[in-house]
Amino acid sequence: MRIDPSEQTSRDNYQLMIASVIPRPIGWVSTLAADGTPNLAPFSYFGAVTAAPPTLMLSVGRRRGQRKDTARNLLDTREAVVHIPHRRLAEAMVKTSIEAGPELNEFDFAGLGQTPAEKVRPARVIEAAIAFECRVRQHIEVGTGPNDLFLLEILLIHIADELLDGRLPDPAKLAAVGRLGGTGYCDTSAPFFIERPR
Amino acid sequence: MRIDPSEQTSRDNYQLMIASVIPRPIGWVSTLAADGTPNLAPFSYFGAVTAAPPTLMLSVGRRRGQRKDTARNLLDTREAVVHIPHRRLAEAMVKTSIEAGPELNEFDFAGLGQTPAEKVRPARVIEAAIAFECRVRQHIEVGTGPNDLFLLEILLIHIADELLDGRLPDPAKLAAVGRLGGTGYCDTSAPFFIERPR
Repeated sequence: MRIDPSEQTSRDNYQLMIASVIPRPIGWVSTLAADGTPNLAPFSYFGAVTAAPPTLMLSVGRRRGQRKDTARNLLDTREAVVHIPHRRLAEAMVKTSIEAGPELNEFDFAGLGQTPAEKVRPARVIEAAIAFECRVRQHIEVGTGPNDLFLLEILLIHIADELLDGRLPDPAKLAAVGRLGGTGYCDTSAPFFIERPR
Repeated sequence: MRIDPSEQTSRDNYQLMIASVIPRPIGWVSTLAADGTPNLAPFSYFGAVTAAPPTLMLSVGRRRGQRKDTARNLLDTREAVVHIPHRRLAEAMVKTSIEAGPELNEFDFAGLGQTPAEKVRPARVIEAAIAFECRVRQHIEVGTGPNDLFLLEILLIHIADELLDGRLPDPAKLAAVGRLGGTGYCDTSAPFFIERPR
């Protein structure tokens, strides 16, 4: 099949994009509004962009032309805690993707606990095995939405001790959840290994 | 475990970053040098950033302070074919990550066939099930490397018919390869599904 995206609707392009660029890591993002209201939501237009300094990319789409809470909060208060969800938390993570106004507390809605972060003001999800405390370093608008693309510098990393293999998380123990198209997900519980050529 | 990245070496931060932000999709990128020399290499600082228009993000690190062939080619000739590798091609894909000068033809080295793309000049990998013909829309430098971060607009999409479920690729049939830390990979052959809350 051969598809020219300029001949398709945005909705068709979106469905095709999220079903094709897989598996995508999930950034599960805790932020605060200017008035202190907490927000928690998952995104998969998300990834790593450099380790010097450790920096994440997060691209947040509009909803009916309006900024989502996460994008508005990042512009207003510049800080986030970004979690990598593992299999045991997948259902709770998806719950926090509910379309709701800023008055809904997604932590409570999904039955998740909050604990203070150290270097930033948004709360950390107690149950999440990996958390990155982050500050916004750059914001650019991309596409016709436009989407808000943020570069987030990681200031502090938390990893649950029971997932460690030495000083690094074990992918099988972590079983990090990846995003596919539609309502699909995968996890990293069955890794395989290939040596690089020399 | 609690890690302050400013207290670690860049190498330790890199290892931790790629083992924690998982699973990452792999952009397997075909480009041409200014003199027409082909290059093919995989990257996992890679992802989707918007579907309007369909746009990919690719962040390419330096090697011993120098731009890699892919970054130099994208700056010089502005076009790429980005493939999503599936499980059957994982070993060939990893072969193309070899550290080599521009004179090495990674297609030949990995035993892969080339076929012309339609809208751009770099070749498409015949065996790859999903290919995006792309043009560079934006380039920014990020971090202290610095890394070259490219936004690539997708002009044309190719998907192998046998992977389709209706008009979208089936994740289990595709078995797209995801990047983990170290020499680790996963694939999307065992998807699970969670409905969004309403």
